[in-house]
Amino acid sequence: MRVMGIDPGLRNLGWGVIDVAGARLTHIANGVCHSDGSQDLASRLLDLYGQLTRVVAQYQPTEAAVEQTFVNKDAVATLKLGHARAIALLVPAQAGLTVGEYAPNAVKKTVVGVGKAAKAQVDHMVRMQLPGVQIDSPDAADALAIAICHAHHMQSAGRLQLAIAGGAR
Amino acid sequence: MRVMGIDPGLRNLGWGVIDVAGARLTHIANGVCHSDGSQDLASRLLDLYGQLTRVVAQYQPTEAAVEQTFVNKDAVATLKLGHARAIALLVPAQAGLTVGEYAPNAVKKTVVGVGKAAKAQVDHMVRMQLPGVQIDSPDAADALAIAICHAHHMQSAGRLQLAIAGGAR
Repeated sequence: MRVMGIDPGLRNLGWGVIDVAGARLTHIANGVCHSDGSQDLASRLLDLYGQLTRVVAQYQPTEAAVEQTFVNKDAVATLKLGHARAIALLVPAQAGLTVGEYAPNAVKKTVVGVGKAAKAQVDHMVRMQLPGVQIDSPDAADALAIAICHAHHMQSAGRLQLAIAGGAR
Repeated sequence: MRVMGIDPGLRNLGWGVIDVAGARLTHIANGVCHSDGSQDLASRLLDLYGQLTRVVAQYQPTEAAVEQTFVNKDAVATLKLGHARAIALLVPAQAGLTVGEYAPNAVKKTVVGVGKAAKAQVDHMVRMQLPGVQIDSPDAADALAIAICHAHHMQSAGRLQLAIAGGAR
């Protein structure tokens, strides 16, 4: 299983790809898609769409996961984030992948063990779980954390299915 | 000039296409792209993307315009609208069109003459300006109003450029 995590943002859209074989996680690549704030919104979305489509084509993930974010404080920021999230959901869906969505607290809880972890702690745990990883930026670190979270959820689901199959025998 | 107006929404995304020749507006087509609320968000966005891409390919607009909406009351609704707007902006941008954005009050002010017009009044004026039009739904009516608004703005800009060119002679 190859998982791509995506941390959506209009200016910086982080992505990270890991391979998952049983409990073993291997880092494949991470980076950030950028859009230029001086351009109009349609051009920025087209830019992000093109960059992310190329990343998906290059690394061929089999699963995708996107952070499920709700910003309450600022309607304009929330609307912008919605635009970026749409690209983060659309591109993997176009490649035929199912796209998992995880709340930020669920990601932290899975990766660090607590739902209210600091950013530095998430970054540390990502490095622990992916030895030798070179992380592009905080947005890419978040994307790798989302990918790790999805890998763990898929493994739990897999173990559950094995247990059910075992019980039915 | 052929203008496509788009009224973004996740469940119902209205669209309307008009031809503009001088001051004369002609209705071409209007309709609504739907997505199924029981599906996951990525599939819904992919659905809207596919439907709107087919509409653009069929009617070949040369300009596009999208409503610029800010919902303040509800962050979840605002985020959803952001997702739908991203598709409304991305699809025409992919077809190489520039995409105008107009605030709802600007659309009403152009089409009806006042910024705080009722929906029925907008619908009435759209029918007045596009004689014989069959309107699919309220979302399609709003999309036609956005297209009419863009046509008027382009004409004003054109007249201004002519006036400037005339003054420079």
